Amino acid sequence: MMALGGAGAVAATGVAGEAEAAAPAIPAKVVHHVFFWLKNPGDATDRAKLIAGLRTLAGIPALRGLHIGVPAPTEQRDVIDSSWDVSELMFFDTVADQKAYQDHPIHRAFVAECEKLWRKVTVYDVLSA
Amino acid sequence: MMALGGAGAVAATGVAGEAEAAAPAIPAKVVHHVFFWLKNPGDATDRAKLIAGLRTLAGIPALRGLHIGVPAPTEQRDVIDSSWDVSELMFFDTVADQKAYQDHPIHRAFVAECEKLWRKVTVYDVLSA
Repeated sequence: MMALGGAGAVAATGVAGEAEAAAPAIPAKVVHHVFFWLKNPGDATDRAKLIAGLRTLAGIPALRGLHIGVPAPTEQRDVIDSSWDVSELMFFDTVADQKAYQDHPIHRAFVAECEKLWRKVTVYDVLSA
Repeated sequence: MMALGGAGAVAATGVAGEAEAAAPAIPAKVVHHVFFWLKNPGDATDRAKLIAGLRTLAGIPALRGLHIGVPAPTEQRDVIDSSWDVSELMFFDTVADQKAYQDHPIHRAFVAECEKLWRKVTVYDVLSA
């Protein structure tokens, strides 16, 4: 069960005795999902540096949730893109908060420090339907 | 502040008086993020049908969180892919749970009902780093 604390929190209400029966919607409105392709694909040192840099972003106030990861060993299927090296998934309450994150000194410092590590970045920004 | 209830819940501990100072990591291990491109791009009826279909997936027990969305009106940048129509973002505790979701009758019914709506699907499966 996923819930957000703070002013915008919405508790998921499930059927009693069937707590797993309805996955709660995630109440944060804006998803920011970034995929990084390293200049040295699969290089463990560069991957660790990038992940360490991404962890510093947790200090940015507007951020409502952070998940940093690598390709998961799920079943191989044609539709799955697993060519990237590192994923950064974030939640924000508003598009303005996402912009504030983008402009925040911690984010700028991360880019200045780590951009030498990647050759390609793809970003998906999603608004709740 | 984002937290997950249930057995694997991890509460985020922030600095007192500075509750926004550290975005909590999301404890669910596996992210499953799917982007759909409609056969009729931008068609409001088809988009609504697909979104309605995606909402049925919330009934699948293994699911730990669900976010359904459309491209967000964030700042336009070259790295942002906003060519898709609908996004489905899910969390699972394990890769096995993601597979159980994939094989669940509700998911199979969704695909059978809605696959006529899309021309392309891209999936990203992410494991916590």
